[in-house]
Amino acid sequence: MTAHAEYELYYWPTIQGRGELIRLALEAAGASYVDVARLPESKGGGAKAIMPFLGGKKKGAATPFAPPFLRTGGIVIAQTAAILSYIGPRLGLAPEDEPGRAHVLQHALTAADLIVEAHDAHHPIAGSLYYEDQKSEALRRAKIFVAERVPKFLSYFEGLLETSEGEWLHGDRMTYADLCFFQVLCGLEYAFPRAITSLSSSIPLSLALQERVGAQKRIAAYLASDRRIPFNEHGIFRKYPELDSEVPAG
Amino acid sequence: MTAHAEYELYYWPTIQGRGELIRLALEAAGASYVDVARLPESKGGGAKAIMPFLGGKKKGAATPFAPPFLRTGGIVIAQTAAILSYIGPRLGLAPEDEPGRAHVLQHALTAADLIVEAHDAHHPIAGSLYYEDQKSEALRRAKIFVAERVPKFLSYFEGLLETSEGEWLHGDRMTYADLCFFQVLCGLEYAFPRAITSLSSSIPLSLALQERVGAQKRIAAYLASDRRIPFNEHGIFRKYPELDSEVPAG
Repeated sequence: MTAHAEYELYYWPTIQGRGELIRLALEAAGASYVDVARLPESKGGGAKAIMPFLGGKKKGAATPFAPPFLRTGGIVIAQTAAILSYIGPRLGLAPEDEPGRAHVLQHALTAADLIVEAHDAHHPIAGSLYYEDQKSEALRRAKIFVAERVPKFLSYFEGLLETSEGEWLHGDRMTYADLCFFQVLCGLEYAFPRAITSLSSSIPLSLALQERVGAQKRIAAYLASDRRIPFNEHGIFRKYPELDSEVPAG
Repeated sequence: MTAHAEYELYYWPTIQGRGELIRLALEAAGASYVDVARLPESKGGGAKAIMPFLGGKKKGAATPFAPPFLRTGGIVIAQTAAILSYIGPRLGLAPEDEPGRAHVLQHALTAADLIVEAHDAHHPIAGSLYYEDQKSEALRRAKIFVAERVPKFLSYFEGLLETSEGEWLHGDRMTYADLCFFQVLCGLEYAFPRAITSLSSSIPLSLALQERVGAQKRIAAYLASDRRIPFNEHGIFRKYPELDSEVPAG
């Protein structure tokens, strides 16, 4: 049962998706949480656990538009960045000072922008259509995504690490922004291996951060567990080799 | 000169864009601010005022990825939602309690998601290509955007207003989330007038909120001033009649 966990996460049970950014934060902090929709249906799990929240008409409930959403302390919060901004300080994954918190949110939002673009590379027309029904448009969008957007975003993050006062995106402590960037790098490596390999020599600090996050004791245990859903072709990052290519020099 | 304003906003000087969400918050609160790039170049303005920040290599500076960004109290914050989350409480445009602040950020992020989709309706392949070079894809995407996404988002926001404990998205005080939703409604009315007209009878609370925001004394004065840049075909919301249509019933 879910009654004794401090956090209840609601997200699609078969993909990493945006929910993975919340899972990583909860896991990194060793938080007491339940990934509700991954429970058996007999214990209140499954995708159907999500549905009642989306059409909710409870007064003052701030009904979610879509998963992920998180229930904690009697409230429900939706939107990945809003959830992270709320739980980050509680989990020790955000700085104490308000300007620092704003910067960590800023970095998480930039990573989220890249996630949207990675998704739309295979779904440029509509999320409600199959990939196969928008493949010609995807080929066109992905080519520009790989040639222009991936290097622009990754060199930007590399620059943040070059100018950080520590080894993390914000100073000398890991924050939820680092977890978001870690997830983006893992996803891009899965979906666009040729692109990332061709860029790897230019993003040494980013790859070192990715390795450092993956080696954190709790994160390493999580990644090795069956709680980490493998990447697959239903999520944001999809291995469609026809969309992947080396990044042109320059 | 800009030295005496509490807030310096940096955003492209010829479009509303995402910067408008910051402008509206500063205007609604009567804040002391300068819209730096709208100053004459002789006074440090113009788009070139933005550039030095983007390639910045200052230690610990959290260099912006893109405008808008805001300079205040010696720090620079980028990403629209991070800026609003930071200045909202300072401007009296966010609740006092943390759950309330999370919900207001949640609503602003949902409005921001709709803004991304409104932009990509005319630029489904790449921001770096002209509309004319992705028009066939835009026709396809916009048709689904109007038929599925606009009604889904707007009925969602209408539901939030139905269940709010006050007349605003979050309770009985206007927040920056209301300003974001106001801007989305104004933009959709400009870019998709047939779609919005066909939906109008189903979103009375949303249209009443839009009118209420527009009638706020400071907002009304702003909208009537030359500080409000008119909508145009360089921004997020563009009047391309071929992309607009009535929302199919059902």
